[in-house]
Amino acid sequence: MAEKRIGQRTFEFNSGVRVVASAAVAGPKEGEGLLKKDYDRIYPDNYAGADSWEKAERKMMEDAVSLAVEKAGVSTDQMDVFIAGDLLNQNISASFTARTHQIPYMGMFGACSASMLTLTTAAILVEAGFCNYTVAAASSHNSTAERQYRYPTEYGGQKPDTAQWTVTGAGAGVLGKKGKGPRVRYATLGKVVDMGLKNPFDMGAAMAPAAADTMEAHLRDIGKKPGEYDLIVTGDLAGVGHPIAADLLEKRGFKTGEEFKDCGLMIFRNDQQAFAGGSGCASSALVTYGHIIDEMMQGRLSKVMVVATGALMNPVSYQQGESIPCIAHAVTLEMPGGGNGGEKG
Amino acid sequence: MAEKRIGQRTFEFNSGVRVVASAAVAGPKEGEGLLKKDYDRIYPDNYAGADSWEKAERKMMEDAVSLAVEKAGVSTDQMDVFIAGDLLNQNISASFTARTHQIPYMGMFGACSASMLTLTTAAILVEAGFCNYTVAAASSHNSTAERQYRYPTEYGGQKPDTAQWTVTGAGAGVLGKKGKGPRVRYATLGKVVDMGLKNPFDMGAAMAPAAADTMEAHLRDIGKKPGEYDLIVTGDLAGVGHPIAADLLEKRGFKTGEEFKDCGLMIFRNDQQAFAGGSGCASSALVTYGHIIDEMMQGRLSKVMVVATGALMNPVSYQQGESIPCIAHAVTLEMPGGGNGGEKG
Repeated sequence: MAEKRIGQRTFEFNSGVRVVASAAVAGPKEGEGLLKKDYDRIYPDNYAGADSWEKAERKMMEDAVSLAVEKAGVSTDQMDVFIAGDLLNQNISASFTARTHQIPYMGMFGACSASMLTLTTAAILVEAGFCNYTVAAASSHNSTAERQYRYPTEYGGQKPDTAQWTVTGAGAGVLGKKGKGPRVRYATLGKVVDMGLKNPFDMGAAMAPAAADTMEAHLRDIGKKPGEYDLIVTGDLAGVGHPIAADLLEKRGFKTGEEFKDCGLMIFRNDQQAFAGGSGCASSALVTYGHIIDEMMQGRLSKVMVVATGALMNPVSYQQGESIPCIAHAVTLEMPGGGNGGEKG
Repeated sequence: MAEKRIGQRTFEFNSGVRVVASAAVAGPKEGEGLLKKDYDRIYPDNYAGADSWEKAERKMMEDAVSLAVEKAGVSTDQMDVFIAGDLLNQNISASFTARTHQIPYMGMFGACSASMLTLTTAAILVEAGFCNYTVAAASSHNSTAERQYRYPTEYGGQKPDTAQWTVTGAGAGVLGKKGKGPRVRYATLGKVVDMGLKNPFDMGAAMAPAAADTMEAHLRDIGKKPGEYDLIVTGDLAGVGHPIAADLLEKRGFKTGEEFKDCGLMIFRNDQQAFAGGSGCASSALVTYGHIIDEMMQGRLSKVMVVATGALMNPVSYQQGESIPCIAHAVTLEMPGGGNGGEKG
């Protein structure tokens, strides 16, 4: 009956919905990192010309949307729905961006999994014929996240090496059926996985089982092995969580190889002091909308899976003794004719 | 090209997706109110047997989902996706409910518009063939909202008469193509409307223009007058906002009559001290999933529009001088053969 679903949890897209264009806007630290050539705009400081960090984050999302729409050769008036999420309470980056761009708006929350949650929803609306064009976006900002989730930034608290550095930036993608961009092929939604971990300074380890769960569900549903993808990236498991996910997958019969990477390990150089690596909605958003789509457009990658991971607690749930519920949403992209395995190794 | 869209912003559902069953779980004050006979469960106190208000809110959403699924004659295992939202930071009520029920989960944020935002998405997934069954839910809790958005509850701060009382409770609906429930006919997503109002104790007035905007867009898109509906309810405009919305609509050529009501004015008796009326995600969720669906099932209402309104600011954006961005999402339900105008007057 559900003709667009394969197996237990995977949605299949077969009407030609694709990422028509995408854009990524980065903060200063990201702009000095490994993917600096892949960003459409880099702000030289964390304020991005605004008078608060929150307004700076919003500006980055507004910019990412504007740039992606412009690159798609259309206008924001032609966008039927804007689907977006971020890390801030009440999704204010996304909601204020929706106010600026005046596109009908669906707010979503998936913590750092927001990038693929919103991309999935944006693809569904086009695939099913509700929209001609949609635009998906996600953002995070180191300074806004720090003061909301942890301590006042002025406090300068030390952190263990398992902590991660919230990435500052925003990414957006325009979905439609025209153009030459990579096709959205499958999406596998996550279930909440909670292994009882409670350490907010070790989110990668908490999220790894959720990533493995969604990847396993996806691979079983479509009957593939990890190596059949040119690139599989998790969103922000970083140095601690990513090997745990690989280990869990191997134990379940899905051995990964050099195609398996993590966005949180692709953004900063080792000497940039990002602890275990990057995190935040912008981790997977910058890598997907800045780097991966471009690599696919240029024919260097053909089949890619992005598994964005999110930790769904808040400070109150943590204070009330709850463990960290995690989730991962996967989207696969295909560029017919592309791919020379250039990402491997 | 977008064959399921009518006019500018309205999605059309024509493959028979319907609300198979629904349930509403209410707090103690709501359980003494005007719709007390319509709730599936009423908790005698705000803790609902849990050890914190946050956990109580979650319990209400968990219950609403369980009860709705049970009434649908299916099991949570058969639910393909759970789509939910609430008012708490990082959507913790929805996310922890997703952990409990272990259904693939899409978190959404639309403040008090979450009820219709999630219902729209749940209907899209079934309509388009991605899912056989989905379950949508929304919740709010007076005590969790007070302490998160305003002051510590112990402070006992006074409020002006324009303030509203956040409704405690949760509602859920199972969407599918089987059964005899009301069909989802149209959904019109909102744009963010911000008239520059900044008073968090007068949210109804801030949200009224958003409700009018979405209702106008809907009526223009499908070419109908308000009076062609048996009932049109806004989510939580209450005593101040609802007349403003009616006035705005009349000025734009859409005169409403006795069919136009507000969920925030339907829940509490006048002597229950709810200021201008109820608010929160549970306002429209309790009325829709407790009262309206039941009235439709029993043939007393045939065509209903629910316009859930949301205010998308957070305390930080307010402190940074921002006005209140508002949104309204509308869903229309139809029960063929039902409707005797019993709601009118």
